Amino acid sequence: MKKFMDDDFLLTTDTARHLYHDYAKELPIIDYHCHLSPEEIYEDKRYDNIAQVWLKADHYKWRQMRWNGVNEQYITGNASDKEKFSQWVKTLEGAIGNPLYHWSHLELRNYFGYQGHLCEETEDEVWNLCNEKLVQKNMSARELMKQSHVEVVCTTDDPVDSLIWHKKLKEESFEIKVLPSFRPDRAIQIEKKEFLNYIEALSEISEINITSFAQLVRALEKRMDEFAQVGCCVADHGLEGVLFEVFEEKEIEVIFEKRRKEQIITPTEIRKYKTALLLALGKAYAKRNWVMQLHFGVQRDLNRNLYEKYGADAGVDAINNQFCAKEFGQFFNALNQEELLPRTIVYSLNPEDNAAIDTVIGCFQGEGIVGKIQHGCAWWFNDHKDGMIKQMTSLANLGLLNSFIGMLTDSRSFLSYSRHEYFRRILCDLIGGWVEAGEYPNDELLLKKIVEGICYYNAKKYFNF
Amino acid sequence: MKKFMDDDFLLTTDTARHLYHDYAKELPIIDYHCHLSPEEIYEDKRYDNIAQVWLKADHYKWRQMRWNGVNEQYITGNASDKEKFSQWVKTLEGAIGNPLYHWSHLELRNYFGYQGHLCEETEDEVWNLCNEKLVQKNMSARELMKQSHVEVVCTTDDPVDSLIWHKKLKEESFEIKVLPSFRPDRAIQIEKKEFLNYIEALSEISEINITSFAQLVRALEKRMDEFAQVGCCVADHGLEGVLFEVFEEKEIEVIFEKRRKEQIITPTEIRKYKTALLLALGKAYAKRNWVMQLHFGVQRDLNRNLYEKYGADAGVDAINNQFCAKEFGQFFNALNQEELLPRTIVYSLNPEDNAAIDTVIGCFQGEGIVGKIQHGCAWWFNDHKDGMIKQMTSLANLGLLNSFIGMLTDSRSFLSYSRHEYFRRILCDLIGGWVEAGEYPNDELLLKKIVEGICYYNAKKYFNF
Amino acid sequence: MKKFMDDDFLLTTDTARHLYHDYAKELPIIDYHCHLSPEEIYEDKRYDNIAQVWLKADHYKWRQMRWNGVNEQYITGNASDKEKFSQWVKTLEGAIGNPLYHWSHLELRNYFGYQGHLCEETEDEVWNLCNEKLVQKNMSARELMKQSHVEVVCTTDDPVDSLIWHKKLKEESFEIKVLPSFRPDRAIQIEKKEFLNYIEALSEISEINITSFAQLVRALEKRMDEFAQVGCCVADHGLEGVLFEVFEEKEIEVIFEKRRKEQIITPTEIRKYKTALLLALGKAYAKRNWVMQLHFGVQRDLNRNLYEKYGADAGVDAINNQFCAKEFGQFFNALNQEELLPRTIVYSLNPEDNAAIDTVIGCFQGEGIVGKIQHGCAWWFNDHKDGMIKQMTSLANLGLLNSFIGMLTDSRSFLSYSRHEYFRRILCDLIGGWVEAGEYPNDELLLKKIVEGICYYNAKKYFNF
Repeated sequence: MKKFMDDDFLLTTDTARHLYHDYAKELPIIDYHCHLSPEEIYEDKRYDNIAQVWLKADHYKWRQMRWNGVNEQYITGNASDKEKFSQWVKTLEGAIGNPLYHWSHLELRNYFGYQGHLCEETEDEVWNLCNEKLVQKNMSARELMKQSHVEVVCTTDDPVDSLIWHKKLKEESFEIKVLPSFRPDRAIQIEKKEFLNYIEALSEISEINITSFAQLVRALEKRMDEFAQVGCCVADHGLEGVLFEVFEEKEIEVIFEKRRKEQIITPTEIRKYKTALLLALGKAYAKRNWVMQLHFGVQRDLNRNLYEKYGADAGVDAINNQFCAKEFGQFFNALNQEELLPRTIVYSLNPEDNAAIDTVIGCFQGEGIVGKIQHGCAWWFNDHKDGMIKQMTSLANLGLLNSFIGMLTDSRSFLSYSRHEYFRRILCDLIGGWVEAGEYPNDELLLKKIVEGICYYNAKKYFNF
Repeated sequence: MKKFMDDDFLLTTDTARHLYHDYAKELPIIDYHCHLSPEEIYEDKRYDNIAQVWLKADHYKWRQMRWNGVNEQYITGNASDKEKFSQWVKTLEGAIGNPLYHWSHLELRNYFGYQGHLCEETEDEVWNLCNEKLVQKNMSARELMKQSHVEVVCTTDDPVDSLIWHKKLKEESFEIKVLPSFRPDRAIQIEKKEFLNYIEALSEISEINITSFAQLVRALEKRMDEFAQVGCCVADHGLEGVLFEVFEEKEIEVIFEKRRKEQIITPTEIRKYKTALLLALGKAYAKRNWVMQLHFGVQRDLNRNLYEKYGADAGVDAINNQFCAKEFGQFFNALNQEELLPRTIVYSLNPEDNAAIDTVIGCFQGEGIVGKIQHGCAWWFNDHKDGMIKQMTSLANLGLLNSFIGMLTDSRSFLSYSRHEYFRRILCDLIGGWVEAGEYPNDELLLKKIVEGICYYNAKKYFNF
Repeated sequence: MKKFMDDDFLLTTDTARHLYHDYAKELPIIDYHCHLSPEEIYEDKRYDNIAQVWLKADHYKWRQMRWNGVNEQYITGNASDKEKFSQWVKTLEGAIGNPLYHWSHLELRNYFGYQGHLCEETEDEVWNLCNEKLVQKNMSARELMKQSHVEVVCTTDDPVDSLIWHKKLKEESFEIKVLPSFRPDRAIQIEKKEFLNYIEALSEISEINITSFAQLVRALEKRMDEFAQVGCCVADHGLEGVLFEVFEEKEIEVIFEKRRKEQIITPTEIRKYKTALLLALGKAYAKRNWVMQLHFGVQRDLNRNLYEKYGADAGVDAINNQFCAKEFGQFFNALNQEELLPRTIVYSLNPEDNAAIDTVIGCFQGEGIVGKIQHGCAWWFNDHKDGMIKQMTSLANLGLLNSFIGMLTDSRSFLSYSRHEYFRRILCDLIGGWVEAGEYPNDELLLKKIVEGICYYNAKKYFNF
């Protein structure tokens, strides 16, 4: 029996251990998509106790606690931090096979030096140990990032964001690059009741009075250029699906005008508008040599009771399984035909879409860019051992795994760089397994290049960091 | 090489063997969903020969025989039992990798003490052995249930069923609980030509003259209360899909009235009616603290030639792959918003739906109930090693495996309790594998609790048995 | 560590090695679906260098090169053969986990006797070795087929094809059977602008002036009979999906007439026409005792820029994920109800369709034919280790793996018989694994029958070759 989560965690062959310990482990981290707060980075945020780190904003953990029948009082309610931690321990200790079990214990090992396992018996020991460590100097936001060998992080920012914290960080020349990502979801969500308020906010910050679709695009482009001034080179979209509805330019102006006048717009009009705006943005990214990220396959805020109480990110989102490979392909083709398809990374929340995605993006590679269109790493609900293996195996079978730009945290927490370790171990085990089975040659130089590329160098080149 | 299906069948590690033999193996069985005939239990049914047990009503085996090119005469026709058995042996002997191969041999081991493998060479030996055993006292329906350590079974019963056999069993105080489940499929299938006859039958048994949708719901609720009197606390639905079509109450009355007058109703009207009735029933279950089961993703009676000859359950059903995760979520939300979402178990026949299901149900957990919404065990066509591993791995990755209420037989046969053994072995191997790989600690108490919970105690608590 | 791709490549247990080396390895090959050029077979085609064999028409390799950022000049452009080969080596050497890595090295081993691995370092050695071998007598098209133990190949031919090369081969009594397959895709694609030209060409070769749907069917049937004269007994269809839209006979004549007059036809009319023609063809195949192949789940020519430059088969096709299990079943039922369902082989490009396919075809087996409706082997993008294991495991779980007619190359290359070796190794490892795990008995006779059946004899019987 292997020891529980020791140095060779998830590494089942000699080659896997060699690849991980000798090549993967020490490489810096490029976390090209996360939800860290730039303010918290600037202010060098600290935590009073482990419950604050783990349970304050982590809707992954909230879901698990609800699944375990924990009362909302101990999740989002006004129970004490220690009580919440205690309920979390009761939930976690039996969560066999769940990635939170691994992530939590990797964090305990990496940041708190705890080698045991968390359960009711060890609860107090862990509580005390973590809280003692958290007051130490090296446990602030910035120090945690540094000790994790982070080189770059890209946060997620709305076009109407002032970028004040990014600017401050830039002025201060913080040694880790903290760059914004441009995420104009609210400009796309024309069906939402907040849409017109959003257009107003965008008008204000862009100093363009947005009264037409053309002006909307112009305002967004202006914000892009302002984002670029603090180093932004990545856009991101959170979408239910990647749509493609044929439209004519002038129709979009009519739809936009109807929406402005608060008239009813049809589902087809919504689809046309969304197609049009995403294409316009895609071209704008291509012209600026930005990378476009498309996160899709999500249903958000499904449990309306909890959403109404706690707002977005309350742990009540789910997979949407209505991916249409045909529209997805048409979207790429439309940009490609105008020779304005930017480098793009796609992520579906539905793991059943892997094969279709890999074959569609395989049709749009080329032009001297290695892995121009990327199948992003296993995302959110899929961010576990099986999900990662599935995504990488599909990519290897249907594309070029060795061009993959690898892992990101997608996280709000300064401890979650352990997920890069998790990913690297799984990657090395996958590759090591193939070598040990005689399915790929034991060619040291090629293996080093592949592993180091996926862990670090591919992303560095892809984003020009 | 491991011996063929010996004591350690499917148990590949020391931990797996320990968990199975020391914890899982001897636990009682709660078979909370099956298709046993309460009449056969009451009458303590016996069999003349193994062909009668295996081939008389088992459409799983019929399909396999047809796949092997066996003529219908030897399947549903008038060939002798021995001839049918002989054709089954010819089919089974080559059925490598099929769960019927395992189930059949588990039954031979558990109920007939046969340790070999069934093939043309051993056909007569097995035929004679089984038939000799079948005349023994301990091979009646009730005795088979007792020796299988069955504690509870829930049969599947139509609201118009008189429950006569359940009542007799209750009066007699048979030591195994035999409870009905409430399965009102025919009240939902408004599009079927038999619908109005069914409404008439329901009117009669409920003594409510059903002339409106409101009265239909009242009649069904009355039957629920009568079912409850013989111990029913579980409802079950067999659905093509879980729909959600927005409707207004009064529309439903109009649709019902049109149907009563044998006017044509549109596909959208059918969808509205089905949504409305399933919601009404869901609330009625919640009020009674019943568990609702939703079986979906099925196309029934696909081969019309065979259906017309042999009726339902002729072995010509298949997976329907039109699952809509969005409507599925809306259905749950609608009940949840009225605070009348009952404990619910969902089963899709399409294994590709696992991840979407697990993430949707993860949005509706809570309220002090552990695993309130359950992802039911791998069902029907998925009830094999790979299907079970897939379902449990998905549940572990995306939810809480340790809250899972585990296996059921879904069977018409008194021998099929072996499927609980099959499940338990696979569960223990899965968990044992994680422990041996260092992915979960070798914590004896936690492991015992998890394994025993999934095999027995979770279901006992969930159903309040 | 296993040696890279040695004699026991992919064979991980003693049983697997035994089954492969003693039973599977030496069996002849029935390649019942490929895209070889009968002209090239007749002319006994030779190659000047390995780039011509590997890179001239292999869109699988083109995709990979594009993914690796190779400029089109080195793919489809006018770079020299050596330069193209060099770019291919740079792409392949890092293509860990990709089936092209395995296929390429199997070809190097089997036809060129090269045991190393191809990379920048060995590039010149391999280039020279292959090119020296290619001039040898035994490296012509026919000799490559002979040394690969090919017994039958079925090429893919349009109804308007003159079959001149098939006739010449027949006259010459070439020892390997080279039979045409009947592939009337262009008669089905009523929405394409080339449709009317195609109808004209078909009119000409069939000597039937096609002015109605009935005549179209008659013309196609006449061509079937002419195909049959050179040994054709297999039809093939490349479809986006298998549709089923209810229609009336007379409607189809109206639709056909509208199309002839170049009037607009609606999407529903297109669906009706396609359903009607595929059903008419299915019946015609059944009457002739032909096998019908249905290849579906494809989006073709997705990248219009590349398609416009290089035409079809440019490496810009992808999976279409809109499979409808319900319509698929209705299609089979419609033929079955008329008792004119031919033996049929179905292949979906979407691996997520496996389970639904296996359960639908399980409803239409029987009539004294073993495995009448076949789930074809893992196809195109799925033609790799994981894809094959998935397809065979699904078939084993849900149907009868031992009735499977096994592998085909689907290839344009005379070297690709190595894919049969690849398949056989994976099959033997799968089966050997089950036996070693005690999940199937170590019954020598049964195992031999299963393995030899799937590799060779099942196909021989199924097609009556």
